[in-house]
Order: sequence, then structure tokens, then C-alpha cells
Amino acid sequence: MATSAELSALRVDAGRLVGRLRELGQVGAIEGGGCARLALTDADREGRDLVTMWMRDAGLDVTVDAIGNVVGTRPGREGGPPVLCGSHVDTVATGGIYDGNLGVLSGLEVVETLNDAGVVTRRPIAVAFFTDEEGSRFAPDMLGSLVYAGGLGVEAAHDIIAIDGARLGDELERIGYLGSSPCPGLAPHAYVELHIEQGPVLDRAGEVIGAVTGIQGISWQELVISGQANHAGTTPMAYRHDAGFVAASVATFVRQMVSEIGPPQVGTVGRLVLHPDLVNVVAAKATMTVDLRNTDEVVLQGAEKRLADYVAEVAATEGVEVGHRRLARFEPVEFDPRVISLVEQTAASFGFTARRLPAGAGHDAQMLARMCPAGMIFVPSVGGVSHNPGEYTRPEHIAAGANILLQVLLRLAEEDQVPPVPGAPVPGAADGPEVRP
Amino acid sequence: MATSAELSALRVDAGRLVGRLRELGQVGAIEGGGCARLALTDADREGRDLVTMWMRDAGLDVTVDAIGNVVGTRPGREGGPPVLCGSHVDTVATGGIYDGNLGVLSGLEVVETLNDAGVVTRRPIAVAFFTDEEGSRFAPDMLGSLVYAGGLGVEAAHDIIAIDGARLGDELERIGYLGSSPCPGLAPHAYVELHIEQGPVLDRAGEVIGAVTGIQGISWQELVISGQANHAGTTPMAYRHDAGFVAASVATFVRQMVSEIGPPQVGTVGRLVLHPDLVNVVAAKATMTVDLRNTDEVVLQGAEKRLADYVAEVAATEGVEVGHRRLARFEPVEFDPRVISLVEQTAASFGFTARRLPAGAGHDAQMLARMCPAGMIFVPSVGGVSHNPGEYTRPEHIAAGANILLQVLLRLAEEDQVPPVPGAPVPGAADGPEVRP
Repeated sequence: MATSAELSALRVDAGRLVGRLRELGQVGAIEGGGCARLALTDADREGRDLVTMWMRDAGLDVTVDAIGNVVGTRPGREGGPPVLCGSHVDTVATGGIYDGNLGVLSGLEVVETLNDAGVVTRRPIAVAFFTDEEGSRFAPDMLGSLVYAGGLGVEAAHDIIAIDGARLGDELERIGYLGSSPCPGLAPHAYVELHIEQGPVLDRAGEVIGAVTGIQGISWQELVISGQANHAGTTPMAYRHDAGFVAASVATFVRQMVSEIGPPQVGTVGRLVLHPDLVNVVAAKATMTVDLRNTDEVVLQGAEKRLADYVAEVAATEGVEVGHRRLARFEPVEFDPRVISLVEQTAASFGFTARRLPAGAGHDAQMLARMCPAGMIFVPSVGGVSHNPGEYTRPEHIAAGANILLQVLLRLAEEDQVPPVPGAPVPGAADGPEVRP
Repeated sequence: MATSAELSALRVDAGRLVGRLRELGQVGAIEGGGCARLALTDADREGRDLVTMWMRDAGLDVTVDAIGNVVGTRPGREGGPPVLCGSHVDTVATGGIYDGNLGVLSGLEVVETLNDAGVVTRRPIAVAFFTDEEGSRFAPDMLGSLVYAGGLGVEAAHDIIAIDGARLGDELERIGYLGSSPCPGLAPHAYVELHIEQGPVLDRAGEVIGAVTGIQGISWQELVISGQANHAGTTPMAYRHDAGFVAASVATFVRQMVSEIGPPQVGTVGRLVLHPDLVNVVAAKATMTVDLRNTDEVVLQGAEKRLADYVAEVAATEGVEVGHRRLARFEPVEFDPRVISLVEQTAASFGFTARRLPAGAGHDAQMLARMCPAGMIFVPSVGGVSHNPGEYTRPEHIAAGANILLQVLLRLAEEDQVPPVPGAPVPGAADGPEVRP
């Protein structure tokens, strides 16, 4: 049995980790150095197969659950719930090679490091990758971890239809990842996720480690605006019911409103499709999405309300109908204060001043936070670029993040107990975020 | 020789005309009562064959020119250039049975009426249908009349490639309409086209006849906006280069600018495509079109300038690049004041107050206006609906339009001379509209 000092001296092999990130990035590679592995596509299967092979090669006991989440477990001296780490290996259509993959492969690197050192931890340590974190093909995002945490039933999840018309359950079966482990999954002892920041805060501040305090609340809605197709030359402006104009007007309003509310409020219209989409025809129909996020639930609800009021007003003026569908709604999540402190202290032991910051994106950790003490470690994204082939994190920052993950996992695996923190959610009893896929 | 009073008493057989509209509408019929006869397809050939057969049955001397325009001529007592009427029989993919067809079949109905009454006019009267007016399969639109009027060479026109990859000259030959009459064609004595309005002005005003004053100038441009894909949650608003926001902002500006300029200025953003078009990704790219129209070239140029200034301003503020491509540009066309007055006076003789209005869409008459005094008669489109299977014009309005066409053609066929009008374009010397297919 290794001493505490021996454990503290353990370091990952950053070269091996970066090599695997690049190798996995070759699967579904796209121009510009990125990759496209939309959830449950053939490319995703290929990525999953590669990571699963590496897990088995590292001696992990690999299980697949009913929503396709894959967990590889390294036994401990004692049984009981493992200390879990991980993230996801699906990407957006124009993704980078770090988003998600870093959390999974650094977990695998922790396991390899322990294997190399012959260390057996007290508790099991497990590495997971969760299905469809991105939500680019099947809404909502963070679907696999949501189902893992019991926030959505397996049957309902299987019936979700992709943007390309495929049924999720059928796609799981088709790619060979419809597993037999039950959902909700086993509540871990704790969960820690290493992730790139995907934003510019650490990079601009010249800082290396973020101790993530929580996750912004997320509101995704789809608006379907129904107007009337008309000839662009012969129809006077006063007679138009232009779905395209209303969509553009709403998108412009989102920017203006967000600017008035101020940071950390953000808002994005990332999808906008017109029909019939012809130069000389007034659009009969527009489908658009609005993504609103804030760390403050009250402010977020206020933004939703202002948007709804504006949509109603502009729709009435233009004489169009607007259908409204909630694609996802997650309240802000606060991570376990003790895990946040542990990340901070561990970073300090490596000489880094960890910056406390909220995550702007959704992450699987917010779902796991329903089940167990959870937290995240951020490393910088150069230029804040993510969901883009140009996404990049420096190897030295990857090494720092992975070593801090290793030490945090070791502490959690060896400790007697994660003491409850006043005000922290009671595992299993917390109110989950609301989801209406 | 019929007296002036006898000629004035002549009336078309509206039942026969409406019957033929319906019969021709059966060729390429689609669901909802419309038809699809894209230029130079098999359906177009079938429609052409039917109309040509009717022309020959009515005793017309039928010629086909090198671009597939078909002209059927009824001899006069004297030779010389005919009084020409007509339009087109091609349709858009989701077309109605009136657009274009009404102008051709009402011309044929005029001929049949003269035949039935045994009238021989002083000048020949001719009925034409021009190739590819819609431009749905081969760009630009109004192609046949453009070539007829000498605005584009036959060889260049033959080399135009369809949206389905076919070469225009090959398709003309394939369907048997590569004729031997030369292009440019013979300049007529005058040209008058009866057409449905395709807009809501007459229908809403409860008016039956439009005396068309000219054709709006058309400016079509495509903007390709290049920003930066970024994560919708993690990227602070200040760091974004959002192509989607810029596109929405431009679309909103178009509406605002058009509203400030006031009628008859119209402006439409009918196409808008985002990339990658995902809910949680700031759009890296947006492709959009802007359709601007006005009867006043100076005002239209002013609108183009204001738009360009705005695009430059918003692009600089957001930090995006904007590529710019002109898709089409036609200057406004003014019809011959004497033909406009003649339509007005003839309508009055039937008890109708003709409304003077510009055409919002392009028509073959604008090409013929380069060669001879030209004008148009509009009848109402119910609900302003066109380019839609639901396109409809009431039989009594068809009858009124065809009778006014008959009387206008008779006046033009019998008169001594169309006197030049001060300020009117000199036939054959007018600056043609510019075309960049």
C-alpha cells in the first residue's frame, strides 16, 4: 500500500494523454483540425469503440447502460461506490478535439498512472463517458448523464427523434451501445470532471486552473413562426405576414435585451431556417432557436419573460402565429463547496492560483451533482474558442489539469467520508432541473 | 370591312377562354389545382404543343424562333409589323393556371373572336408565347423575350445551364422548339400583355382593371457573412463575431429602411441560411439575399447605398467579414404613356375605372418595351396569391380583361400611327436593363 507521500508524488504521462487526444480526434476528423462525431452516428460509434478498447486495455471493467453511457471501473481495496470522473466523446458538427474528450481521456490517464505505479486505491475509481452531451443531434443536451441521474426515463429517452429523423433507441441499438446496465445508475462516492473552459476567461487572465463553482442555468426554446408566402415584388409591405422578418426581429431583440441585462447573461440565436427560402418569396415559415443562460435563476426567468412579451408583440403587429417549444431548461447548479475547495487546494499545491468561476456551458457534472458531491476543473481554451475545429488547449495546461484531477481523485478515493456541507444538496434528494425535451 | 361601331361591339367568348385556361392547366397539373411546367421540360413541351395546335386551328401562321419563342400571326389588310400580344406558358414549380397563360390564351381568344365575326384588321395581329419567363429552371427570368428584344445573344442563351444541369440549347432541340426564325425578332407595331396582377392591390381595392404604368426596378443581392463559431454559453457577448446576429440585424434594417422610404419601395429577405445552424453555437456564417424594388431608379440606388452603408457599419462593429454578390439588377421600365392611356380609356368605355399601378414582378412586356410602344393590362388575383396552386382570378374579371385587350388591340391595329410621346423611349434606342445571370 502506497504512502500518502508516494501518492502525492504521482504524475500523469502528459505525452500519452495528448497523443490519445489527437488519436481520438482523428475519428470523424474534419478540415481545420477538428472533428464531427454527432451522438450515435457511425463516427460516434468509432470514437466509442476506440475509447472502450483503451479502457479494456487498461484493465477496466467496462459496462454499458440502457442509454449508452459507458463506465470503466478500476477496483479498490474496498467495494462500494466508486469515485467517478469522465465527460463525453460526442462532439458538435464542427467540434474540436478537446471538448469532452479531455475529461474522459484524462480519467483514463489517471487509471494508467495508477496502474504503472501499482497503486490500489481504497475506493474504486471509475471513468465514464456519457451519451449525447452536446445535444446537437438529439435534444436535450447532457442526455446520457440526465438519464444516468434519473432525471429522464429510459423509455422516454429512447423515443427522442434526431434532427435527421432517427429514433434514439434505434440508433443506440444500431451502433451496438444499447447496454444492459440499469438507469438511473449507481450513485458514485463523488464525481469530478476535467474540462476545457470553452470560454476566454482563463486564457485572457493568463490563469491555468479554474475551480468551477457551478453551471449557468440554461433556457433553450424553439419558435416556429407561421406567416404567409407572398411575392416579394407585388406584395406591398403593409400586406405582408413575413415570418422571416419576425425571426430576424426576435434575433435582434435577443442581442439588445442581453446587452441591457449585462453579464453574465448571454443569449444566442444559433438556428434559423426559412421556408421556402427563396430570394423572391416572402417567407411563410421560420424556425429558430433562442439560447439564454444566466447563473441567476430569477434573472434568467426575467429574460424569458421579456422575450416572450416581445415575441407576442411583434407577432401581433406582423400578423403571424408563433408556436413555442421548450427544448431544454436547466436551473443554475451549484457544485459541492468541499469539492470546489479541494480543487483549489490541490491547484495551490501545484503552485497555481485557481480562479473560481461558473461554467457557461452545460456539463455532465451538473447531472451527477444530483446524486453525489460533484465538481469540475477547468483548463484554458486558447482564445476562448470551442465548438470549432480551431479549439486548442496547450499541452502544459492539459498536464496541469490531469495531475490536479489525479490528486483530487486520490484524495476522494482514500478519504474516510465526504462530509456534508451546510447548504449543499442532499444526494438523491435535490430538486432536479426541469427537463421538457 | 367592319365599321368602327361594329368593332366596338365585339366581345370575346369568356366561357371558351376560361375553358382553355383550365384545359391548359391540366398539363403538368399538381395537387391543389395548380400546375408545374418548368421551361423546356416535357410538361412545357406538352403545353406548347397544345397552344400551338390551337393557334393553327385558329388559322394563325405559326413561327418558332431560335430561342423557342412561338408567334402566331393573323394577316391584316396591309402588311407591316403586327400588333403583338402574348405572355408565357411556362410556370414555376408550384404555379397556378393563370400566370402567363392568361395573356397567351386571351390573345388567342381575340383572334377567334375576330375570326367568328369575319373581321380583317388593317395591321396583322399576332399572339406570342415567350420561352422561360419564370426563370425557375434557367436564369435569368424573361429569357425568351430578352433574346427576342436583342438583350442577349442566342448563342449565349443556348449555353445557359439549368438548375438540373441541362443545357438550354439542347433542351430546346430535345423538345422540338429550336426554331429557325431569327433573333432579335421583328419589332411589332405595339405590344400589349394581359396578366394577372399577382399582388393584392386590385383585389383589396375591389377594382377590376389595372393600367400598368411600368415595371419596378429589381435589385437582388446575396450577402455572405463570415464570423466565428463559438460556444453559446461560454463566450461573453463582447467577444462574439456572430454572423447570425449580423444577418438578422441586416434583415431588420431592410424592413426599417423600406418603411422610411415608403411605397412603392419594397424589400425582402427571403433567404437566410446559418452555418452550422445549431442551437448552442454562435453562427460562423450566414448567407442571405436582399430583394429591393422600386419604380424610381434613383430611389432604388439610394436604398442599395443605404443598405451597403449599414452592412459595412454592423459588420465592423461585430467584427465579421461580408462578401457581396449581385444576383440580378434590372432598372425600372416605364410603359408607353399612350398605351397606358389607351388601356385606361378602353376600361372606362366598359364602365371600369382603371387603376394606374406599377408591376411588382418582371414581365415579358418590359423586354418588348425596348422595341415598340408597350403596355400591360392587369386583372385581380384573389387574395394577391400567385406562384401558388391556389392562384385564382374570377371568370368575370377574365372576361373584362380579355374584352379590353380585344378593343385595345383593335385600336392599335386600325390606327394610322402610334404617335411618339414626349419623354417616351425611342423604339430600338432605349437603354436596355442590365442582366448579369
